[in-house]
Amino acid sequence: MTLTEAVTAQTPLVQRLLDGVAALGADPPGITRVAYGPGESAAHALIAEAGRALSLTASTDAGANLTLRWASPSAQRAPVLIGSHLDSVVQGGNFDGAAGVIAGIAAIAALQAAGIQPKRDIEVLALRCEEAVWFGLGLIGSRCLLARLPEGALDLPHARGGLTLAASIVACGGDPARLREGTPLRDPRGIGAYLEVHIEQAPQLIEAVAPVAVCLANPGNVRHPFIRITGEDAHTGLPHRFRHDAALAGADLSLALERLWLAEEKAGRPMAVTIGRFHTDAARHSLTAVAGDFTMSLDLRGYDAEHLAALEGRLAAIVAEVAERRGVTITLGERSAAAPGPMDPAIIAGLGAAAARLGIAAPALNSPGSHDANNFAAAGVPTGMLLVRNQNGSHNPHEAMDTPDLMAAIAVLTDYLAHDAA
Amino acid sequence: MTLTEAVTAQTPLVQRLLDGVAALGADPPGITRVAYGPGESAAHALIAEAGRALSLTASTDAGANLTLRWASPSAQRAPVLIGSHLDSVVQGGNFDGAAGVIAGIAAIAALQAAGIQPKRDIEVLALRCEEAVWFGLGLIGSRCLLARLPEGALDLPHARGGLTLAASIVACGGDPARLREGTPLRDPRGIGAYLEVHIEQAPQLIEAVAPVAVCLANPGNVRHPFIRITGEDAHTGLPHRFRHDAALAGADLSLALERLWLAEEKAGRPMAVTIGRFHTDAARHSLTAVAGDFTMSLDLRGYDAEHLAALEGRLAAIVAEVAERRGVTITLGERSAAAPGPMDPAIIAGLGAAAARLGIAAPALNSPGSHDANNFAAAGVPTGMLLVRNQNGSHNPHEAMDTPDLMAAIAVLTDYLAHDAA
Repeated sequence: MTLTEAVTAQTPLVQRLLDGVAALGADPPGITRVAYGPGESAAHALIAEAGRALSLTASTDAGANLTLRWASPSAQRAPVLIGSHLDSVVQGGNFDGAAGVIAGIAAIAALQAAGIQPKRDIEVLALRCEEAVWFGLGLIGSRCLLARLPEGALDLPHARGGLTLAASIVACGGDPARLREGTPLRDPRGIGAYLEVHIEQAPQLIEAVAPVAVCLANPGNVRHPFIRITGEDAHTGLPHRFRHDAALAGADLSLALERLWLAEEKAGRPMAVTIGRFHTDAARHSLTAVAGDFTMSLDLRGYDAEHLAALEGRLAAIVAEVAERRGVTITLGERSAAAPGPMDPAIIAGLGAAAARLGIAAPALNSPGSHDANNFAAAGVPTGMLLVRNQNGSHNPHEAMDTPDLMAAIAVLTDYLAHDAA
Repeated sequence: MTLTEAVTAQTPLVQRLLDGVAALGADPPGITRVAYGPGESAAHALIAEAGRALSLTASTDAGANLTLRWASPSAQRAPVLIGSHLDSVVQGGNFDGAAGVIAGIAAIAALQAAGIQPKRDIEVLALRCEEAVWFGLGLIGSRCLLARLPEGALDLPHARGGLTLAASIVACGGDPARLREGTPLRDPRGIGAYLEVHIEQAPQLIEAVAPVAVCLANPGNVRHPFIRITGEDAHTGLPHRFRHDAALAGADLSLALERLWLAEEKAGRPMAVTIGRFHTDAARHSLTAVAGDFTMSLDLRGYDAEHLAALEGRLAAIVAEVAERRGVTITLGERSAAAPGPMDPAIIAGLGAAAARLGIAAPALNSPGSHDANNFAAAGVPTGMLLVRNQNGSHNPHEAMDTPDLMAAIAVLTDYLAHDAA
């Protein structure tokens, strides 16, 4: 059986696992697999069972992440980890996360079916709680693994039920005391590579008519969840020259940031600006009053740490200009940041070569979203990602991915693994 | 005693009445006189008592408005009505409304003290419920008087306690059954003139260093309380070319309307644009999602019916342009309109002449706000207004007016009355 035939032969397994995790998270019209909840844990069990059928060794770490190891009797290099997550947002789709874990299982199954034993261990990771909706903090499973939890994170309350993160991890068999030690559960220097397959979450591959992309970088971000603009409440009749309109200052700020984005893209510096919260105060605003108070969030993304730093400088200048012109006060407030996750050049090249060998169109793209891969890249692990074409974005019930596109990604991943450690 | 001396002699009365109504509405740090509530009714009683001291005849109409009549034994023309309101917004100031009613009382007191008996009846009106906060509809007392209540208004619930408008009027001695007949409580053709003194509510007079202004017109408006913009919810990583961002479409729309405003003012066509509600959906928005849904209100003011109609045409064109460019749907939704209230040219001239005789600086200004005077003007009653300088706008606890400025307005009003019907 050729490797290509062996991959194709895994289609029923892949479909069964996709359908299986969908059934465990069914929450019409979407899918809800609450992190550390019954749906996520049952999906972990289903994946563990699939691993046992391939004679993989299952273990659970102190962060309650599942690892399925295929040990190589002739290992010459540090292991390759293939990971993603099994939780979802509330009424999201089935593929954001789960497709990547299942891809890892299918790749090992295909290698086994083709009689190929790589000369390094291959491990599949089902990481916990990737979605930020559960604790207001994302990528938690990989943070636990690599000791990248921010101060106080273990005491955050779960959005469903309010257990702390520590108690949620205990309930799933983990060990928060170990996490509080602050050292990685695995030394990143002992990880040869981290690979992740994930749906693209944007329609760039639909536009490009390609099933899969080789990821160049995951974005880092600078976030201000609650920017406050303070002007002056005023009567509807107030002439313009006397107004200090906080809402229009927000409009100015948002559109100036959008113009910055478009100019940067044009100059070949990819980035993104998202202003998700953008609002007057529901308790005070009215049809007949100028708004003296406005709140907005800002998520500023970039693929390069220097570029992100430059963008923060531009943000400060725009804020100062708007505040001066409108006579308002703008407070950026709380700030969080995540470093960009550049992919390893050798892995980018290797995945591209695998796709070329298979005749699969696989353009190189920046990932729209951040992923667990960011934590591995930040910890110095050589990291690579494949993005899978999908309709309708993600984090919504209409998220859609065709199984043949996932099979194309699995084919590239499997071919890469076969060549990488032949 | 000259008329000027007689006006000055009313300063203690004016101060006593201002302080009296303030005490009745005390709600630190502001003033709250709930329409049809104990505070407003007690203020009506205080004004009625002041009227009795001047031998005025008190009556309450079917809308529970108070009328204090100074009958002229030698009346040759239809009466002059001097009115305003005694309700306030929640934690507003003391002067928005009350100053005007007290001015009417003081003008009659001054005429009596100077021994001047005009050859027409003079009536002081304390109109009920001018503020829109109580029933989502403003100018209710004058609407009742002139049969200008919109369909269904009597069934609206009060924001405090939920009694219907009809029940609220009954509780204050009015007669909703009479109001449902739909004919004016007084034939507007039998009203010789309507005069109103009101704080300016904007700092134009502070800027002009003048205590009082002769009003040229009250604005009319077109209102859309809930404009809905529908785009597409999306992931933070979505490239710009795929986004249909409802919040940024709202930003575009608001700033385009502001540019329209500034261009119209520059071209000598006064107007105002207020976007009081401007918000993403608090139940759905997040730091990490492009907003697919946005809501905003619009209050478009103009001083001329033709101009307002032209502005609505411009609004439609701007909406179409933004919707097309952003790929979003914009629904203006519910629409209400109020006709502009142009002041009577002869009264404008007469008030200006009175100010000139007294050596009081009294520029001619458009009123920033709408007032009960709008309903009288719309009913065809010759109408005039004097605006009084005040600090800090209105509808807030910091609203401020100096009594000497109100006395200047009372002097102009009294002089006008003395000359008008000498």
